[in-house]
Amino acid sequence: MAPPHAQKITPRAKDFSEWYGDVIAQAQLADYSPVRGCMVIRPHGFRIWELMQRALDDMFRATGHRNAYFPLFIPMSFLAKEAEHVEGFAKEVALVTHTRLRATGKSGSGAIAVDPTSALEEPLVVRPTSETIIYAMFAKWIQSYRDLPLLLNQWANVVRWELRTRLFLRTTEFLWQEGHTAHVDEADAEREARTILGIYRRFAEEWMAMPVLTGVKTEGEKFAGALRTYAIEALMQDNKALQAGTSHNLGQNFAKAFTVQYQTAAGGLEYVWNTSWGVSTRLIGGLIMTHSDDNGLVAPPKLAPVQVAIVPIWKTDEEKQQLSAVGYRVKQDLEKAGLRVELDARENIKPGAKYFEWEALGVPVRLEIGPRDLASGQTVLARRTGGKAPVPLATVVNAVTTALDEIQAALLTAARERRDKNSTRGVTKAQFIELMQLASGGGFAYGGFGGSPSCEAEIKEQTGATIRVLPDPEFRSKEVPRNCMWCGAPSIAEAVWAQAY
Amino acid sequence: MAPPHAQKITPRAKDFSEWYGDVIAQAQLADYSPVRGCMVIRPHGFRIWELMQRALDDMFRATGHRNAYFPLFIPMSFLAKEAEHVEGFAKEVALVTHTRLRATGKSGSGAIAVDPTSALEEPLVVRPTSETIIYAMFAKWIQSYRDLPLLLNQWANVVRWELRTRLFLRTTEFLWQEGHTAHVDEADAEREARTILGIYRRFAEEWMAMPVLTGVKTEGEKFAGALRTYAIEALMQDNKALQAGTSHNLGQNFAKAFTVQYQTAAGGLEYVWNTSWGVSTRLIGGLIMTHSDDNGLVAPPKLAPVQVAIVPIWKTDEEKQQLSAVGYRVKQDLEKAGLRVELDARENIKPGAKYFEWEALGVPVRLEIGPRDLASGQTVLARRTGGKAPVPLATVVNAVTTALDEIQAALLTAARERRDKNSTRGVTKAQFIELMQLASGGGFAYGGFGGSPSCEAEIKEQTGATIRVLPDPEFRSKEVPRNCMWCGAPSIAEAVWAQAY
Repeated sequence: MAPPHAQKITPRAKDFSEWYGDVIAQAQLADYSPVRGCMVIRPHGFRIWELMQRALDDMFRATGHRNAYFPLFIPMSFLAKEAEHVEGFAKEVALVTHTRLRATGKSGSGAIAVDPTSALEEPLVVRPTSETIIYAMFAKWIQSYRDLPLLLNQWANVVRWELRTRLFLRTTEFLWQEGHTAHVDEADAEREARTILGIYRRFAEEWMAMPVLTGVKTEGEKFAGALRTYAIEALMQDNKALQAGTSHNLGQNFAKAFTVQYQTAAGGLEYVWNTSWGVSTRLIGGLIMTHSDDNGLVAPPKLAPVQVAIVPIWKTDEEKQQLSAVGYRVKQDLEKAGLRVELDARENIKPGAKYFEWEALGVPVRLEIGPRDLASGQTVLARRTGGKAPVPLATVVNAVTTALDEIQAALLTAARERRDKNSTRGVTKAQFIELMQLASGGGFAYGGFGGSPSCEAEIKEQTGATIRVLPDPEFRSKEVPRNCMWCGAPSIAEAVWAQAY
Repeated sequence: MAPPHAQKITPRAKDFSEWYGDVIAQAQLADYSPVRGCMVIRPHGFRIWELMQRALDDMFRATGHRNAYFPLFIPMSFLAKEAEHVEGFAKEVALVTHTRLRATGKSGSGAIAVDPTSALEEPLVVRPTSETIIYAMFAKWIQSYRDLPLLLNQWANVVRWELRTRLFLRTTEFLWQEGHTAHVDEADAEREARTILGIYRRFAEEWMAMPVLTGVKTEGEKFAGALRTYAIEALMQDNKALQAGTSHNLGQNFAKAFTVQYQTAAGGLEYVWNTSWGVSTRLIGGLIMTHSDDNGLVAPPKLAPVQVAIVPIWKTDEEKQQLSAVGYRVKQDLEKAGLRVELDARENIKPGAKYFEWEALGVPVRLEIGPRDLASGQTVLARRTGGKAPVPLATVVNAVTTALDEIQAALLTAARERRDKNSTRGVTKAQFIELMQLASGGGFAYGGFGGSPSCEAEIKEQTGATIRVLPDPEFRSKEVPRNCMWCGAPSIAEAVWAQAY
């Protein structure tokens, strides 16, 4: 692993956005590419994504889903078949229109241009999401109720032509999974959408140590083409919300647009009910902004590419030999226990510089071992999140696994406490206006909502805040708000507002 | 798992190409999509790809490679920087030129078109391969010899605008891995290219049970922009060759085009040496055409999505209960041993129909168990490749794992024997001409090659055959050919010709 070149990280308090970029650069998670809005995910960042994939994929599989792969390109006319859907994506699609380049200018000059004779009859859209192409296939595959439910998922890249991009959070191309399912009736589709929301929540909390609210989106914030959109929403350290995953009950909208019908047991013909759901590399942005500090990345142990860094400390060549050998043995023991470990025996770099690097990379546990430690049969276990204590070499595996479990749990607790501290319930309009200026606090604002789209739009226009979710019962306030906190109309549901990414 | 709707498979002898399509359809491996040349990889086929990925990824990781992800889009001007490279790909690229759609015609009519005001300043190429975008990043990351070797790999989709497509073998979009590395000198790059070729060979033989020749490509057949291209080549059942993987020593061609330089230990400035290498979903086509038969897919056990299908046989409800319970227990025992197992307790489908389906899906081992088997404490183990014998229930796990190992080994042996039987050494021109008409045999033809590109081109034009490789020493004939089998000039190397996919 190449060491990050040490640079100073801008403190969060000074400039959160600069800090975010610095953490990513120092931990070598991602980089800007020469293509506007597209990022390069570097090995350390990609490993986090792979670990996320593995965990999520296991959960999808355990609930009966199977992976497949559908084309990158979607005929333009397909997108148009579902009216809301095309409206939602028309302004941000990459369009393939030609298929050949030709040389221009002198031979060998290397000058090339699009060959105008290679125009496609029908332009192709680089998938911004795959409902249309997938349900076109479902129409072919689904004949009878015996083919249902059909529970598929794909891991893929998608493209949305974004003008304001930020690494991981909003990029023109991003990686994600998109689940697509078909069901016999609304109840079964609703159950599926809810099952997935539960998986997303469990993944966010148990793996990312990122607490989330769950709930339903308003009409104005739902997915283009969905009946209902459910979401998990997290609160970042700058008190802005991050939509971290969505699960849609699509109703029969796409089934009707693509004629996905099945024969019922009684012999009738019915449209299927669909769901779709996804999480993306945006989660890595959420992970960073939930836990990291002014020294760089803090990775929750379950998703840390490197969980333990072993740093032997020596002065003489003999000590070097001896301590590296011990370090190697400890590495092997830890790896046998299933941990991801690096031994840092690089020469010409001082231990302090090494510590600094492993911290920036977010490694949860560091083991330091010098001649005196070895003499007393111990190693010093330092936690990325603070605290340092000697542990006997004889029981180091146990000490490390315990420390990793404790760190994982402590990160979730700390994040939950921060989130709750920055949640204000029963807000009045005046409170709300002040709160939604981030300098005054930000966070999640709970209040009554009258259900009027125009009221919702006005709030967004005047304060920038949006309804993140109408929260599920367990997140609702004990006192049910009677009136819309903005317009005073009778409240139809409690809502959670925030400034959002 | 949804049962494939039983249809007849065209025999290989009648029409190999039809047979190939039928096997894919029956095993539900892939399907044509509404996008010209793009395929849908269905769950059963995608699972094979995932198993392939897992095995290869482990091998790459064990040799020090790390995964990363680079943008789907490449600025048109990047492609032009390496002259041979752009020439090789200019005629088959998907070009993104616009980024918005707009409604046309009446509001609500759904008619849309490309918005001409959204034209990009510089068109983007959907990656046909990623050398140019990756080496542009290498130029940014590599400073000193300490940063070398840089050993990266990415799993990605790529697009080449192919006019004649066939599922898995040649599709407009396909999935692959592409490794990209940078080294201090030619020797290190050469070692890397060879290491990867060895991994590809090992994977083909040990996992796919597909024997391959290794060797170097001629100038005419090498990768556009490479110094040297190495390849693994397999022989399909129709006696056509399949290029199954390539590993390129790129020399300093791309390093010079993208100014990828490093500071040497002595303080000088040098260009790096690059390699790139890839295998794709084409391997699934190779797997199918190596082993499958007129009853459908034959999957080598190590890559079979389902390794064991258990079919309980009953007449009464009581028997059904009892045998399904036994089947479930056997399934659990086999899964504990790490096997991929399905229990087929579907009602209203006769055992014979079930056997037929599992055969078409390529499942290597089937366990049949009826009331009489149960009474004598046994189950009948049937092999997809032929043979059926009772085994005691008490030792079924051992019997199944042994059978799977034997089948895996037997498939490789059979394929190797078939390949060798269809290899002709020391061909004369007359023999060659006859051989290269597939009806007369096809296969691999070994002969002397004078090294003349025009001779190579003439052979291709007159016979359709191409040099697959100049084989590595272990594959060469004992008798070294003295003269070019075609033009009679002194031979510079033995070559292996074939008709190829």
